[in-house]
Amino acid sequence: MNKTNNMGPKKTEQNNMNIIPVKNRVSVPKKYPTKFSPLAKQVVKIIFLGGLNQIGKNMTAIEFGGDIIIIDCGTAFPDGEMPGVDLVIPDFSYIEANKQKIKALIVTHGHEDHIGAVPYLIKKLNIPVYATPFTTGLITYKLKEHKLLGNSKLFKFRAGQNFNIGIFNIEFVHINHSIPDAVALVISTPIGKIVHTGDFKIDFTPAKGQMINLARFAELGKENILLLMADSTNADRPGYTKSEKNINESFEFLFQKACNKRIIIATFASNIGRIQQIIDCAVKNNRKIMFSGRSMINYVSVALELNYINAPEGAIVDIDNLGRYKYNEVVIVTTGSQGEPMSALSKMAHSEHRKILVGTNDFVIISAHPIPGNEKSVSNVVNDLMKLGCEVIYESNLDVHVSGHASQEELKIIQALVKPKYFIPVHGECKHLASHAKIAEDMGLLEDNVLVCDAGDVVEISSSGIKKVDKAPCELIMVDGDGVGDVGSVVLNDRRHLGEDGVIVIVTAIRLREKRIFAGPDIYSRGFVYVKESEELMSEARKTAIKTILGCFENSNCDWNMIKMECRDVFYKFFYEKTRRNPLVLPIILEVKR
Amino acid sequence: MNKTNNMGPKKTEQNNMNIIPVKNRVSVPKKYPTKFSPLAKQVVKIIFLGGLNQIGKNMTAIEFGGDIIIIDCGTAFPDGEMPGVDLVIPDFSYIEANKQKIKALIVTHGHEDHIGAVPYLIKKLNIPVYATPFTTGLITYKLKEHKLLGNSKLFKFRAGQNFNIGIFNIEFVHINHSIPDAVALVISTPIGKIVHTGDFKIDFTPAKGQMINLARFAELGKENILLLMADSTNADRPGYTKSEKNINESFEFLFQKACNKRIIIATFASNIGRIQQIIDCAVKNNRKIMFSGRSMINYVSVALELNYINAPEGAIVDIDNLGRYKYNEVVIVTTGSQGEPMSALSKMAHSEHRKILVGTNDFVIISAHPIPGNEKSVSNVVNDLMKLGCEVIYESNLDVHVSGHASQEELKIIQALVKPKYFIPVHGECKHLASHAKIAEDMGLLEDNVLVCDAGDVVEISSSGIKKVDKAPCELIMVDGDGVGDVGSVVLNDRRHLGEDGVIVIVTAIRLREKRIFAGPDIYSRGFVYVKESEELMSEARKTAIKTILGCFENSNCDWNMIKMECRDVFYKFFYEKTRRNPLVLPIILEVKR
Repeated sequence: MNKTNNMGPKKTEQNNMNIIPVKNRVSVPKKYPTKFSPLAKQVVKIIFLGGLNQIGKNMTAIEFGGDIIIIDCGTAFPDGEMPGVDLVIPDFSYIEANKQKIKALIVTHGHEDHIGAVPYLIKKLNIPVYATPFTTGLITYKLKEHKLLGNSKLFKFRAGQNFNIGIFNIEFVHINHSIPDAVALVISTPIGKIVHTGDFKIDFTPAKGQMINLARFAELGKENILLLMADSTNADRPGYTKSEKNINESFEFLFQKACNKRIIIATFASNIGRIQQIIDCAVKNNRKIMFSGRSMINYVSVALELNYINAPEGAIVDIDNLGRYKYNEVVIVTTGSQGEPMSALSKMAHSEHRKILVGTNDFVIISAHPIPGNEKSVSNVVNDLMKLGCEVIYESNLDVHVSGHASQEELKIIQALVKPKYFIPVHGECKHLASHAKIAEDMGLLEDNVLVCDAGDVVEISSSGIKKVDKAPCELIMVDGDGVGDVGSVVLNDRRHLGEDGVIVIVTAIRLREKRIFAGPDIYSRGFVYVKESEELMSEARKTAIKTILGCFENSNCDWNMIKMECRDVFYKFFYEKTRRNPLVLPIILEVKR
Repeated sequence: MNKTNNMGPKKTEQNNMNIIPVKNRVSVPKKYPTKFSPLAKQVVKIIFLGGLNQIGKNMTAIEFGGDIIIIDCGTAFPDGEMPGVDLVIPDFSYIEANKQKIKALIVTHGHEDHIGAVPYLIKKLNIPVYATPFTTGLITYKLKEHKLLGNSKLFKFRAGQNFNIGIFNIEFVHINHSIPDAVALVISTPIGKIVHTGDFKIDFTPAKGQMINLARFAELGKENILLLMADSTNADRPGYTKSEKNINESFEFLFQKACNKRIIIATFASNIGRIQQIIDCAVKNNRKIMFSGRSMINYVSVALELNYINAPEGAIVDIDNLGRYKYNEVVIVTTGSQGEPMSALSKMAHSEHRKILVGTNDFVIISAHPIPGNEKSVSNVVNDLMKLGCEVIYESNLDVHVSGHASQEELKIIQALVKPKYFIPVHGECKHLASHAKIAEDMGLLEDNVLVCDAGDVVEISSSGIKKVDKAPCELIMVDGDGVGDVGSVVLNDRRHLGEDGVIVIVTAIRLREKRIFAGPDIYSRGFVYVKESEELMSEARKTAIKTILGCFENSNCDWNMIKMECRDVFYKFFYEKTRRNPLVLPIILEVKR
């Protein structure tokens, strides 16, 4: 286990690495049995704080005695049920309640759903972070943005290396994914080894770097693995996920097909392998490469700085120089493959991009599949580009995109090699986890040894087996602007209500003791009807308000609250009857001072 | 053209039909040349009021001299940009402006995107409606709901029949689609024949009824067709669309797989052929059939009444009797295949269905593909059903759904048979229309004879060719509750703003002349932050409001409007700086009476 294998970045890259020295960089494996009383029951706890029954927000804690390590700390995208929310981060309650035990955060790779919430965690608890060089580069960038870099403790390790943290030893194993430098983890605990695949696929011919270190997975099969946790994202897809190399041929073909047009390729900014393929193809076809979109430029900068992208001198050109080249001399690599409304590609499609004006001379390739939920926005962008005259390659018979996640046959290979005692499928919605569990059972694992968990589950493994023992707090913590966690269900319900039907404000100033109206009642609406075209309705509403308030005055129990409630009830009814709509009614009664 | 072919419903069904007699039911073809001065330029106009560059809202007018007929009158579903909107209907401005010319509405089939807006049209202009028996049944149901049936003029014709309307002769041609009794139209005009395919596919083995009347399409090839308009929905899909019969085998297999579980199948309520296959399979497997969901029950009622569904006595059972049967004696056919939040299947998935409680004894088949934009909601329903223990067949290798629209090879067959002079692709987004146009050109049509149009385009065909000549008003008319067209861009912008960031109301009662605050300022928020947890922010906001208003008082030009504008500006800034959010700020200044 301690030997260093060759799966890491190539030699040329190593010279540029600024690895923070760690004493136990390559560690002698811990001799666990001597450390514990043989009488005490030895237990590993796995605490799932995200990534199960949901896509994104990956975070798992592993606890043994007084030590906890955290694996990944990602964000999730808010769905339609969370209007206005920017991000969702994991619930840190369990972490904060066990502050003194937390030894480190280990990050498997640099996608947002694995690193996005790192700054929010570091703000609460400045623990050391362990990751591969490229992942560290991306985390560094993120911490800089949050002005947190100064005090942070980042440690770089490569695939093939291992290190001790508290009671645990952690080994990075090279795997393939849609971002460079992604690793699986082997976590040694006193009662056995845990393998966590991270996000992975088996790619025998990746665009960049080596294939997955299958040899190491085979070795693990002989090391009595206690628990396997494996990526379930594609667990309902039969067969194998295609190799990233397949895309090369398609690009070659499409570059020819583009003829004299300008080529614009939209893809995921983090897919550095894909970007390398585009660069190679562009160089071969005598085109300059330009990048567009904030996150594209960020990822590419980090990749260039750390030598994860190779390009001949002068091949990459700043987008500001676009005007100097002919259409057939240019490839623009851009964000927006998911049809995100503020992305560079969407701006091009709406002729709103400050630097790139697209038209009949553009050949656009969408080198990505829509993430579930984005199908419509991608389709809209394709249509809008076509309306401007662009030729658009979107869902082609050609391979212009492959997934970064293992399909069923690959998952079987990992099961077959690792031969774990227990298995927990991770990273996926319910349907993916269920499908992955079935694969494991079909491969011969006992049903009792396969556990399908939910976010929040606390699982205990000991000599007496595996079981769920508890629930950790696992709310969806919403980030909206600067606010973290200050948007809850009341606010979201109001937003949905406001967004669907608008708001009616009924405002009046009264002096309750005198039972007299001093000002108003006035009716204001937003998002309900266009008031200028509904004067009659509004004037009737005003009359109704006067009647309602005067009616309350006549009641001997009349108080401020009664008027408010009465106005609300009357107006919900009034507007529903008149319009069959249900705007949010906000009655405001001001008390006039003497 | 006048012979009656056998594509309509079978003989047993005809006895039950109540066809309103029309004088010219089977017409002698008009002898056009005698009717017109040979000197006048003869022109056919096609006015597209929907269905182009959008999915849904199909409506096309055909005009010759003083006569206009309308083809279809459908609704579209509002997208994410139209929060709170129930439906989108076509813009009737052109129709209203040409009232006296409108002779009839011809409906190709009974899907919502073809009949949904019929009541809204009939309310404006009570023109006669011509359709096949099943389509008429559905329109009748719809008009009843809108209390419009009494005065309406509905005429039933079958595929194979033809009739004169004004200057036009219209023939119904049997085609295949995912609803019974769908037809293509052959519209004879003085300057040539127009073929409109409606929505169609070529199904050699449909679930119910005959295959498409390809023989008639072949005949049309000899009749010098002036213009073909054809369905483009699947024009970017290579190959052939599979036959509905393929599903039979899958159902057989899945009914076995379900063993002793209850079977729940979600599909489109209008897909009567599919429902017939389910009934047949259920009968064979000794299961009773029950229906769930309002629109499912509506469609099935119409189909049963008009004999479009055959089931042995006692095979169909009311859902209220569910409790009398064992799990393995039941198939429930339900709405909700698109994950619609208020549908029966969604209610089951959330344990909110009043009559059906699902769990580990349920075997659920989603017999539909998600319509673009619904992928996420369908996925959510699948996951939620699985969490309750249901076995769910969703994206299987089995054919549990086939499309109702022709793929590329089928579109080529129609082009090849009909051999039109001019071609306009209809029913599709930009990408579909572009793809369909390319197919026609690849088949040999001159580029100048293929016209890709947009909603609103007015196209003229005469001896001098085909060209776009004008634009008809073609706004999106939004239906929200009882309101038709009273929601416009201002209201939608406000809704989006409110839905994302909520609203802040600053309200105060002043007497401007005295420059005195009588009540308030009070700050109210909805959908912004939870006020109880943000007291500090709100109290600071209140202080800021006082300062702002008093500041205005000191200005000699101070008026009501100035205070309002100042409050708005100050508070947009204040809240953005404090929270990085942009709630809608609504300042209300009440003037206190003496």
